[in-house]
Amino acid sequence: MARLTIIGLGPGAAALLAPMARQAMESAHVVAGYGTYLDLLEPELLAGKEIIESGMMREMQRVQAAIDATRAGKDTVLVSSGDPGVYGMAGLAWELAEECGALADIELSVVPGIPALCAAAALLGAPLMHDFASVSLSDLLTPWEVIERRVELAAQADFVLAIYNPRSKRRDWQLPRALELIRRHRGPRTPVGHVRNGYRQDQLVDVIALDGMDGAYIERVDMLSLLIVGNNATRFVSAPGGRRMLTPRGYMDKYVKKC
Amino acid sequence: MARLTIIGLGPGAAALLAPMARQAMESAHVVAGYGTYLDLLEPELLAGKEIIESGMMREMQRVQAAIDATRAGKDTVLVSSGDPGVYGMAGLAWELAEECGALADIELSVVPGIPALCAAAALLGAPLMHDFASVSLSDLLTPWEVIERRVELAAQADFVLAIYNPRSKRRDWQLPRALELIRRHRGPRTPVGHVRNGYRQDQLVDVIALDGMDGAYIERVDMLSLLIVGNNATRFVSAPGGRRMLTPRGYMDKYVKKC
Repeated sequence: MARLTIIGLGPGAAALLAPMARQAMESAHVVAGYGTYLDLLEPELLAGKEIIESGMMREMQRVQAAIDATRAGKDTVLVSSGDPGVYGMAGLAWELAEECGALADIELSVVPGIPALCAAAALLGAPLMHDFASVSLSDLLTPWEVIERRVELAAQADFVLAIYNPRSKRRDWQLPRALELIRRHRGPRTPVGHVRNGYRQDQLVDVIALDGMDGAYIERVDMLSLLIVGNNATRFVSAPGGRRMLTPRGYMDKYVKKC
Repeated sequence: MARLTIIGLGPGAAALLAPMARQAMESAHVVAGYGTYLDLLEPELLAGKEIIESGMMREMQRVQAAIDATRAGKDTVLVSSGDPGVYGMAGLAWELAEECGALADIELSVVPGIPALCAAAALLGAPLMHDFASVSLSDLLTPWEVIERRVELAAQADFVLAIYNPRSKRRDWQLPRALELIRRHRGPRTPVGHVRNGYRQDQLVDVIALDGMDGAYIERVDMLSLLIVGNNATRFVSAPGGRRMLTPRGYMDKYVKKC
């Protein structure tokens, strides 16, 4: 029985790719993935493989082709960026494999990766140290009312908030609207982290205050950006390498300081 | 200037340790960490290193010792399980380094890792495919009212819910109480994933229904467990390897099926 393995590249740097994911690629006959992600890989990893590539909006066809290749007896790897289980390809692979009655014919597994929110957090300081929620602002597959309700309740519950897909050329009003909801429950000086191309070429890491997220700033946010909005305890940290953000977990109140 | 690098081991398997984290350990003079986590590492990685080890409740001392070692000019790695930014050591390291005025003397950085919720999700199927929230039920550093409010609002917002630190010998009433709040917003057949020791020895992967989370089942949940409660669309998937859970993202409604 051939294997269909859905792997996560992590942020994209080879040094953050798990050996288990690399090994799955090395032993596969077929590699399927969105071109932009395959371009992040060292060319040697793809040498001699059958490649199933397709554009951003053609996930269904890509996953279907990967399932078909596996059913034809070829070990196949389906490549996702970040973690395949967080807004990645794991769900569609399970869903389509079940729908097409392929689960008995193939060996499906998921290899986890470092999700974009953890990569961004590491670059920003330590913003996710307390309870957090992750919301995608893309209303392509989810009604906007559902997204809006989640943003509002997450802000109300004082979750740190990771915002995926904050803005694209065609989706430009969703982020200002989400920020408006968040401002009902957060002070103007709440730190907001913005990471674009984390651990990739042209990396941007920026920590600003919520009241700095105005029209001019928002122009700089796009589909390659991830935002992290602090909770009510998140604060700025001045470090030589630049401003960072930190969400305390409560240790300092609980324990005696030593320095 | 010596480096203090906070790394995440991921779930613990060497095949899921990022090369960047491994490299930081290889080039460090000092490795600091909780004994149980250091035991997950290949012994070669610790050979010849100065080791700063301390028990579970002594994070402050451990981080302080790591900062002191770095200030003394020794490159130091502070080891966290999972991702150091998700309920890990990144926050305390930033916090203490700032508090002790060490940020100008050391080069502090965080190397992200695969967090426990992504490792668990990969083993459970694809439960995190839509917006999710992560809550720790440990009320050691957070008032229970805050935790309870987060659980309730996350359930109300239809987030998939990852539950860290669900239960320990001394904290046995919090999980039943959290489940009671969740049941107000989820049907009895909502899938719940339970992973214990994911990608480690004695791995347990179990998918049950919310109404199966009764007293007898809860006895099996402990500090090594992570729970993932589905949203209102999460469903079971029957796979040859065992029951899995899947949170659809909406593709099937949006696109035409191909098989």
